[in-house]
Amino acid sequence: MTRTFNFSAGPAALPDEVLLEAQRDLCDWQGKGLSIMEMSHRSDEFVAVAERAEQDLRDLMSIPDEYRVLFLQGGATSQFAMLPMNMLRGKTRADYINTGIWSKKAIAEAKRYCDVHLAASTEADRFLRAPDAAEIQLSAETAYLHYTSNETIGGVQFDFIPDTGDVPLVVDMSSDILSCPLDVSRFGVIYAGAQKNIGPAGLTVVIVRDDLLGQTLPGTPTMYDYQVHAQGGSMHNTPPTFGWYLAGLVFQWLKRQGGVQAMAEVNRRKAAKLYAAIDQSAFYANPIAVSSRSIMNVPFTLADDALDAIFLKEAEAAGLLNLQGHRSVGGMRASLYNAVPEAAVDALVSFMADFEKRHG
Amino acid sequence: MTRTFNFSAGPAALPDEVLLEAQRDLCDWQGKGLSIMEMSHRSDEFVAVAERAEQDLRDLMSIPDEYRVLFLQGGATSQFAMLPMNMLRGKTRADYINTGIWSKKAIAEAKRYCDVHLAASTEADRFLRAPDAAEIQLSAETAYLHYTSNETIGGVQFDFIPDTGDVPLVVDMSSDILSCPLDVSRFGVIYAGAQKNIGPAGLTVVIVRDDLLGQTLPGTPTMYDYQVHAQGGSMHNTPPTFGWYLAGLVFQWLKRQGGVQAMAEVNRRKAAKLYAAIDQSAFYANPIAVSSRSIMNVPFTLADDALDAIFLKEAEAAGLLNLQGHRSVGGMRASLYNAVPEAAVDALVSFMADFEKRHG
Repeated sequence: MTRTFNFSAGPAALPDEVLLEAQRDLCDWQGKGLSIMEMSHRSDEFVAVAERAEQDLRDLMSIPDEYRVLFLQGGATSQFAMLPMNMLRGKTRADYINTGIWSKKAIAEAKRYCDVHLAASTEADRFLRAPDAAEIQLSAETAYLHYTSNETIGGVQFDFIPDTGDVPLVVDMSSDILSCPLDVSRFGVIYAGAQKNIGPAGLTVVIVRDDLLGQTLPGTPTMYDYQVHAQGGSMHNTPPTFGWYLAGLVFQWLKRQGGVQAMAEVNRRKAAKLYAAIDQSAFYANPIAVSSRSIMNVPFTLADDALDAIFLKEAEAAGLLNLQGHRSVGGMRASLYNAVPEAAVDALVSFMADFEKRHG
Repeated sequence: MTRTFNFSAGPAALPDEVLLEAQRDLCDWQGKGLSIMEMSHRSDEFVAVAERAEQDLRDLMSIPDEYRVLFLQGGATSQFAMLPMNMLRGKTRADYINTGIWSKKAIAEAKRYCDVHLAASTEADRFLRAPDAAEIQLSAETAYLHYTSNETIGGVQFDFIPDTGDVPLVVDMSSDILSCPLDVSRFGVIYAGAQKNIGPAGLTVVIVRDDLLGQTLPGTPTMYDYQVHAQGGSMHNTPPTFGWYLAGLVFQWLKRQGGVQAMAEVNRRKAAKLYAAIDQSAFYANPIAVSSRSIMNVPFTLADDALDAIFLKEAEAAGLLNLQGHRSVGGMRASLYNAVPEAAVDALVSFMADFEKRHG
């Protein structure tokens, strides 16, 4: 097996150990004579896998008992509608913070169901920073405040949790969940597509506080009702069993690494190395305000974008894959999720220095 | 590797060849140095995999050009809401045929969005048969007729396609898609959860005629709009890439077997052997009208249900797994999807004869 360093923004790198375990068991899970993919979701074997995954996630994130953990389908994009449908709870207005492309998508979908008030926006600053805490102004009678803790495309991350008092706080944490310790009790809903820091695409994790369940908008599809999934243990219908299993293997791997505190240290070190390489050079640039720089997704540009294609080609030849920036912004982007080892960043930084010498 | 015979109703057996190929490539797909699960859905590599899967399915089912093929999430249960949301198209009534548990679920969800007229129901006959063509009475001004071609739990299958004239025909084909040749042009929408005859759980295939797109109900979530997925090539957001890939491997395997015509012959032979074993015995029984018997799911009972647990235990010891009937009906059920080899049925029939000798 040859394994490269994979900086994909998502679907993204998975830990080698996890893939090897899944590979070993793919045709014959734990000597049972069939694949985990071929088992009923209601079998004793799969239920044990599913329950362990939930417990491990609860342990890793210290999720309080009054929160339900849901393993759903549809990605964060489905959550953009599920949120107002579940969280308006008789109100007609929701507050959103606009920090870039993913915030905008959440806002656009919410507007189909309610009046959206922008509690803060950094659009005037071309989304090159997250707002300060003092900039966030909640509207009266708002049902909740939604924000995107890490803008995967922009490379902008909040370095604080907004204080909303009694107003439920809702966060799209798709690209930085499990990257560092988090006080879950500050939130009403935390949601994340799995394909960045959790597992394969096709699984969405939703963590929702009990008391917020059960007041959906009229017309809400049954499968968009958090309470239905909470009551059914995320098995109201057949769940994405392989994704759930694989997420469980990732959670076990995270525990073996020392949990999110240990990951946070590695993640901070990885990001610091890459930002230092960028900042120390006149050839590379990252435009994000230092306090808002993402430790997960690092976009950067080359002094001459005519070199972009050569950079990508040479990087690939050096075993550094998927460094192309998002099609909407161009340039480069290195995603440094939990499963991207520090050695990958070291190799990238070394390649960048060498590339600059030859082309700068 | 030990592989058993797996009669699970879903998630269900996958072909050995498919699992072995997926296993071989799991950590390092085609020598690219990363798993197919770790690739962007927009990478050249994954797009080629996705497009080939669609083309192979089009070839296998002879899907006409004016149909879109969507690779979605959420299972058939999500379709139960997506159908009225997309297919009412300004009307307020839809017709449904009620043949059992899955029909009932589709009907219950549709009632949240429109007036449901029962075009036929076999509930008075305890769902022991599908209706005759002559029993189906469409209501005036109906938007579409929905039926369940194969009731996975009841073991009841239509042996004909209802004739609806100009009214769009919609079918839940989750448990018998690809089991035999089909005239797709008779349908407005065909949908199927993947976890029976297509691939792993977490993928849903929807085949929809072009002219039916683009008239969703107000309040339809973006992710519930067929047209959004059709226009985005099922990549409006990140699709379930591994499931899509694995479905593609299954489609290639089906082509190697000779396509659905060849599968239909094997499937009819498998079912005939099992029904013959049941009918020739006074110890086993299947209550379904012969013309409505499913070739995919064969429920059967033992003369004494006190023997059920022993039957299941001994079957498992003989390498015959997941024969327990659905929790709502009890008894036994053998699902004989495409990936269940004829040797599995031979082994089951032989085991049943032996069990009857010892316990009958």
